[in-house]
Amino acid sequence: MKRVLSTLFLCMSSITYAKTSAPENIIMIVGDGMGPAYASAYRYFHDNPNTPEIEQTVFDRHLVGMSSTYPAQVSGVVTDSAAGATALATGIKSYNGAIGVDVDKKPLESVLVWAKKQGKKTGIVVTSRINHATPASYLSHNESRRNYDEIADSYVDDTLNGQFKADLMLGGGWKHFIREDRNLVNEFKQAGFHYLDSYAGLSKLPKNQPVLGLFADAGLPWALDDSNKHRLSAMTKAATAHLENKNGYFMLIEASQVDWGGHSNDIAAAMAEMDDLAKTLEFLETYVEKNPNTLVVLTADHSTGGFTIGAHGEYAWRPEVLRTMTMSPETIAEKLSEKAINQAYAKSLFKFALTEVELAQLQLDKAEAAAEVKAYEAAKAAGKAKKMAEPEQVASVLETSVKQLIDKRTNTGWTSGGHTGVDVPVFAFGPQSERFNGLQDNTDIAKKIFTLLGKN
Amino acid sequence: MKRVLSTLFLCMSSITYAKTSAPENIIMIVGDGMGPAYASAYRYFHDNPNTPEIEQTVFDRHLVGMSSTYPAQVSGVVTDSAAGATALATGIKSYNGAIGVDVDKKPLESVLVWAKKQGKKTGIVVTSRINHATPASYLSHNESRRNYDEIADSYVDDTLNGQFKADLMLGGGWKHFIREDRNLVNEFKQAGFHYLDSYAGLSKLPKNQPVLGLFADAGLPWALDDSNKHRLSAMTKAATAHLENKNGYFMLIEASQVDWGGHSNDIAAAMAEMDDLAKTLEFLETYVEKNPNTLVVLTADHSTGGFTIGAHGEYAWRPEVLRTMTMSPETIAEKLSEKAINQAYAKSLFKFALTEVELAQLQLDKAEAAAEVKAYEAAKAAGKAKKMAEPEQVASVLETSVKQLIDKRTNTGWTSGGHTGVDVPVFAFGPQSERFNGLQDNTDIAKKIFTLLGKN
Repeated sequence: MKRVLSTLFLCMSSITYAKTSAPENIIMIVGDGMGPAYASAYRYFHDNPNTPEIEQTVFDRHLVGMSSTYPAQVSGVVTDSAAGATALATGIKSYNGAIGVDVDKKPLESVLVWAKKQGKKTGIVVTSRINHATPASYLSHNESRRNYDEIADSYVDDTLNGQFKADLMLGGGWKHFIREDRNLVNEFKQAGFHYLDSYAGLSKLPKNQPVLGLFADAGLPWALDDSNKHRLSAMTKAATAHLENKNGYFMLIEASQVDWGGHSNDIAAAMAEMDDLAKTLEFLETYVEKNPNTLVVLTADHSTGGFTIGAHGEYAWRPEVLRTMTMSPETIAEKLSEKAINQAYAKSLFKFALTEVELAQLQLDKAEAAAEVKAYEAAKAAGKAKKMAEPEQVASVLETSVKQLIDKRTNTGWTSGGHTGVDVPVFAFGPQSERFNGLQDNTDIAKKIFTLLGKN
Repeated sequence: MKRVLSTLFLCMSSITYAKTSAPENIIMIVGDGMGPAYASAYRYFHDNPNTPEIEQTVFDRHLVGMSSTYPAQVSGVVTDSAAGATALATGIKSYNGAIGVDVDKKPLESVLVWAKKQGKKTGIVVTSRINHATPASYLSHNESRRNYDEIADSYVDDTLNGQFKADLMLGGGWKHFIREDRNLVNEFKQAGFHYLDSYAGLSKLPKNQPVLGLFADAGLPWALDDSNKHRLSAMTKAATAHLENKNGYFMLIEASQVDWGGHSNDIAAAMAEMDDLAKTLEFLETYVEKNPNTLVVLTADHSTGGFTIGAHGEYAWRPEVLRTMTMSPETIAEKLSEKAINQAYAKSLFKFALTEVELAQLQLDKAEAAAEVKAYEAAKAAGKAKKMAEPEQVASVLETSVKQLIDKRTNTGWTSGGHTGVDVPVFAFGPQSERFNGLQDNTDIAKKIFTLLGKN
């Protein structure tokens, strides 16, 4: 009887889904570089050590499947962010480096542009520059992700041609949008956009005016270093409120810097970016409760860094020290390069006490790096520097030392400064989220969204 | 209309599931060490390079979710195979090393033992010794996985006490079952078991007699080296036919040596073990078609080796050379140690032509290792060896060289000789397979199977 009842309930809930089967709002989130180890690791990072159980995370609540990520055949089986984003945005695999174009460099329509044509509002919220590979693949077409200025130009040119694609863009990118040859911010303003350049402005976005918000020269600061450590979450809240309208909206959100933590083999930075993404997802959980016509889909474009939870034959991963850190290893290293390193100073930066060995290693690394810089400068003064390789800056050497110290403390493993080919997790909630169950290809995610947006 | 129809269809299929909701037969498969990268990598290994698309694998068809794997709090967040198997078998987390006992070393009932009590037949099919951590956690209780002889003794002692747990056991383990102090094989025979010691015997298992099949001293040979490279699949076919009966059966299958490929950082061995597992799953696909009352669930207990698909900053993984290999790196190394290394000889072993650099590196590594062994033996003859560390055997040094050569060719990354804490994929098909959708803990898998077997 119980079984029959639960079957009936399943039928009823299927019918409920059918009624709401075309979600009005679709929020696509890309955790750039967020391979399966990142979501698992976040569970252990996020755990409350004062309780015996390991607490469930927001990711745990919404896992529905996985996605393969390989690019077009010409680029082998390991994708870059451009080909990955092009697949997620358009449903077509392309070569590594491609922005919204196919292997023949022909432009491809993105789900965002299609949504716009269907009368929906559209937006992008990212922690990279807004013309970086992932958002660019939803908004532009270019044969190379490296053509940052061209991509930025295309955003405003499309707008001026009456084909503006996004009603809201939040992220970084001053150096591409305010240039000597062209001031795109002014052009956007002239085209009717509201412009803001600080997070404070997020609380007062004008409802019926398109919005451009740029908060940094390129990418935003690391979450660990930013004035708001949950800036993705803050931008997302403002964006949802701004985009709501009777025709619905499509929004792309990217936690861009999980990837950069991976590239830099920086587990402290990566976990803080994951925390910002988790807070964003938690906000969207309550948002979907209040707006049950909203579908949220989260996946990664690939995994970065060959990150592993444990390494070197030891069956352990110890995220404890990561939980209290308040600045990035990059910033800690800069500060260590500025003053004499002692226990008190180090502790004020790391927020945990270093062992004598750890402290001595930092002091040694700094002394060696400083000696190399000094020798080079002396040679330069004597006109003999040409024969010498320019040494690494002291802060840069120390950044590597700090990350290695943290890797040892936590027993974190890395195999690469680049990407790897493991399938990535897919999370979804809201109406039609069950469409994303099981294994799918990255191109299928775009195809499913096109279908939900009424494209055959 | 289309939408309503598909909803009705969903309801109908739910009702069909409800009718068959208690699967008669449950086949639980553990891919030991098979973290997410292994299933993804197998897709690229398995790909037919003569077609433009990447072919779907049997794993791709049946992914339904993922599983967390952390052990009891006392052992941190990275599990060993004993705690992992205890969780999968009993639904209770324990300490690393525990075989079917809780953190207080109290015995725990496994799903296999419960199934037996419900009148089902039971079986285990593994490529390790049959008293290894995973099968032992379903069949025995011991405070330590290292107590191999005690665990083997418990199998026969339970049988002699009229509490025999498995109607069929296939795998390795002569050295524990045929010992000087006790011949367990004879004891099993006296208790009515049919015994076989070669794969040839698999085709003639007596239907109404319990079966013990041991095919190796400890684990079976690597799939790459075995007389039947798909021996897990062959054992599984024989086991299903043997176990079928009107009350149904529970069977544990373990692809034990995916893990060993990971521990040894041997991608060639690992992919061949995955291929044997894939063939097993393909057989079970057709089996479930013919026996739709059979549920198949596959997961891993943890990931091993910190294996990554790509490494060292290069966006590539090249499995091509792995597809044609016919012996394990361990065996190749033994053979390289026996004869002078030249291109023709190397090619006869690797099945691909080495570059000049690869060949010269093997020759150098062999010469250096041989010189060390020679120096040690000379010192030993002169009575001076005590002061020297005993050198590694030439074949062992060459095994590392061979694996490194293959890692470079394929661009494979590893971070560990041990396990890591990433969540693992869950695959399922057959009635009630949707119960395994989404994220679950390893203990949930046992709990769901207990429920399907009627335990509250």
